[in-house]
Amino acid sequence: MSEQKSVGVVGAGLVGSLAALAFSSKGYNVTLFELRPDPRSDSESRKSLRSINLAVSDRGIRAMKYVDEEMTSRVLEHVIPMKGRMIHDATGTKQESQIYGLFGESINSIDRQFLNVCLLNEIDAAKVQTKFGHRLVGLGSVNEQKSYLEFQTKDSNIERFEFDFIVGADGAHSQFRYQLQKTMRMDFSQKYIDMQYMELSIPPVKGKDPKSEERFAIDPNHLHIWPRKDYMLIALANGDGSFTSTFFSPWGMIESFSNDTEYLEFFKTSFPDAYKLIGEEGLRTAFNSKVRGSLMQVEMSPYTNPSHNAIVIGDAAHSMVPFYGQGMNCGFEDVHVLMKLIDKNNGDAKSAFAEYTGARRKDIQTICKLAMDNYYEMSTKVIDPFFLFRKKVDYFLGKYANGVLFPWIPMYTMISFRGDISYSKAVEIEKRQRRVLRCIEYVTVGSIAAIGLAKVAQYWDRFRR
Amino acid sequence: MSEQKSVGVVGAGLVGSLAALAFSSKGYNVTLFELRPDPRSDSESRKSLRSINLAVSDRGIRAMKYVDEEMTSRVLEHVIPMKGRMIHDATGTKQESQIYGLFGESINSIDRQFLNVCLLNEIDAAKVQTKFGHRLVGLGSVNEQKSYLEFQTKDSNIERFEFDFIVGADGAHSQFRYQLQKTMRMDFSQKYIDMQYMELSIPPVKGKDPKSEERFAIDPNHLHIWPRKDYMLIALANGDGSFTSTFFSPWGMIESFSNDTEYLEFFKTSFPDAYKLIGEEGLRTAFNSKVRGSLMQVEMSPYTNPSHNAIVIGDAAHSMVPFYGQGMNCGFEDVHVLMKLIDKNNGDAKSAFAEYTGARRKDIQTICKLAMDNYYEMSTKVIDPFFLFRKKVDYFLGKYANGVLFPWIPMYTMISFRGDISYSKAVEIEKRQRRVLRCIEYVTVGSIAAIGLAKVAQYWDRFRR
Repeated sequence: MSEQKSVGVVGAGLVGSLAALAFSSKGYNVTLFELRPDPRSDSESRKSLRSINLAVSDRGIRAMKYVDEEMTSRVLEHVIPMKGRMIHDATGTKQESQIYGLFGESINSIDRQFLNVCLLNEIDAAKVQTKFGHRLVGLGSVNEQKSYLEFQTKDSNIERFEFDFIVGADGAHSQFRYQLQKTMRMDFSQKYIDMQYMELSIPPVKGKDPKSEERFAIDPNHLHIWPRKDYMLIALANGDGSFTSTFFSPWGMIESFSNDTEYLEFFKTSFPDAYKLIGEEGLRTAFNSKVRGSLMQVEMSPYTNPSHNAIVIGDAAHSMVPFYGQGMNCGFEDVHVLMKLIDKNNGDAKSAFAEYTGARRKDIQTICKLAMDNYYEMSTKVIDPFFLFRKKVDYFLGKYANGVLFPWIPMYTMISFRGDISYSKAVEIEKRQRRVLRCIEYVTVGSIAAIGLAKVAQYWDRFRR
Repeated sequence: MSEQKSVGVVGAGLVGSLAALAFSSKGYNVTLFELRPDPRSDSESRKSLRSINLAVSDRGIRAMKYVDEEMTSRVLEHVIPMKGRMIHDATGTKQESQIYGLFGESINSIDRQFLNVCLLNEIDAAKVQTKFGHRLVGLGSVNEQKSYLEFQTKDSNIERFEFDFIVGADGAHSQFRYQLQKTMRMDFSQKYIDMQYMELSIPPVKGKDPKSEERFAIDPNHLHIWPRKDYMLIALANGDGSFTSTFFSPWGMIESFSNDTEYLEFFKTSFPDAYKLIGEEGLRTAFNSKVRGSLMQVEMSPYTNPSHNAIVIGDAAHSMVPFYGQGMNCGFEDVHVLMKLIDKNNGDAKSAFAEYTGARRKDIQTICKLAMDNYYEMSTKVIDPFFLFRKKVDYFLGKYANGVLFPWIPMYTMISFRGDISYSKAVEIEKRQRRVLRCIEYVTVGSIAAIGLAKVAQYWDRFRR
């Protein structure tokens, strides 16, 4: 690069912060804008950050490592690895572990806000300029090279900045995307899922050493699931010994209970063990707070407007339901894919922007659909014996037969632990594997039937004699 | 109504203006807001109004009449009735008229801006407050009864107004819809069609009396079509003797010509007669202006947020492609449907708002799809002999067999001349009619084959003797 190019990133959440770091590490002069105040100095802003726990997996880690290996190690020190699902049965007495990886791989529970603060500290260290309290109100192109971003500051002034490239990472309700829509032919859709969620909390065990494993009321190294088909409860461990638990149910179901006592009664019957873990008070408070989350899927295309050197990444480009734990991982991968395209084009970001939609569209469509489908797996299939049998065969083949005739990698492994396989490629491979699994099932069932028939024939023969 | 209720309407285009008049005629205290300056006093604003001609048909007229019979008569005095399509063939020498109605019904060409000014004058007469130059920047609910609208005025002040009901009619890129999205779970999609359009103009014939029919270069009482499959040209008459002509083509096709001469060559070969009518200068100017329109389809659901007493109507709720000439008619029908729901609920607008989406959703989905499908009919099917034969049988049955066994009404008639039949009901009826038509075709083909065979048998017989 003969001359230092400038980048304006809108949104200092997880994906925006990583994008800012990534461009900065490539030598760009980066400015990062955020509507909210700095979460490190403002307690209100801290509270308003969404608290759904995150599971960082391979794609997220690869993207972070691409940007900064050391930073990644520092962040990963604070995660709680989850090596499988822990299925809680309806009686509240039995728990069954279903391991995620073939070789002990884990997804990693981390607090969204903690990760965000880590990234912002790295940004300060990288001397990236940050501008909090800046509300985006406009964007466009100044000329063929330069684009502008316009913000309203707290004192209602309008400030205008010019950049060579502009990046929108301001979340599902992205203002950047909305402004960009006005400048180009952008397909866009948002669709609400007929589902609501309510956050609950499992407190740490009292009187235990806050550093010991004993402070956790249930095993911290699992993602806990209470699968009940139409609704389900999940829980992820936090560093302080508590668990953030989320109750997913059809939209309006919680409101159909006439009061908190009725809701508690339902909860006690459906989740007897979780009822004790969370406690009556916590359940009552959550019910009466009337805070319910909704789930939305957002898709758009194309992701870039080359004539403005503009790109949309993260939730702003693809808000997905949380059931595959890939929202943030996919957002981090957006940054990774973009950076690799810049490398491929020998530092020419303009060409990278132009290629980005073609390179990324299919994978984003794929993971949005997989995330949606995974609700059914988490809430229903995990207790289906046929599903569990198939999963066992799948994992056995993955562990011992991978590469014998052809590669064999279970779907969950490809999505969560093999960032080198794209989402769409994973679906392709899985399709072939499913065909083979079906054949194995037919052969198994056929063999059992054949043995059975042989037995019957034997008896029949004996009987005739 | 014991107490006068207030309504704030955002968008003083066609649908917003009619909605303001409709609420006002029901005794509401209405304020109408518009981002742009008053088109009657501001020449810039006049220019920026879209100039695609409109075809007012039965649904639009019914809605206007519901609001004000006399106003409707005054407006209709200025329309140019179009009783059919005029198909221009590829040689530029033949024109064929295809009549729209069974009994001479017409759709009516009218200038968008003229109609808008008519409605605004009626609004002034009805003492509806108008506030031009008001940019919507926020909306929400004050309490269970009242909602607010917040605007930025030209001098950058923020003004806030409170209303019992708020109505968004601010077009395809609606700010009202965008603000409302933030307050509710709204499904939304926008999809661009792979097509562009360019406006052209056929000037009046020189030296003719400006009041005589002779001032029109082609028959004013037809919608002229030059159907060429992948692209097409249309033309609608204006009161001054000119025609507004629109060239529709695949996105980027116009840009694929390296210069205006190449484009003119193409135009001359494809539309020899239109080439002469428009003239080289007009074509060259349009090509070099680089002004191209894009076509977008917008859908959303639900249309109302009852907790804010808010509703979205017109293009803001359903922007459709222009190929059935129903965009404005459907928007006017939105107002009509809402008013009839208020009547049904004995003046209780809150209940009407709550029922509106259920009453309207299916019809809006239907017409959006019909509009899209009609490009194929206009550009391709109108010159297919099988289509024309079917259409003739269809119209014959509509004219002479309607009500003999069951109702028989051609599709175009139901959509454009029978506002009493909803869009979705029309599709249902059409499906049945198509089945009958297919039977008739089979019988006809079968009979011809049978007669043919009989003839062959006769000859064979004679030959054997």
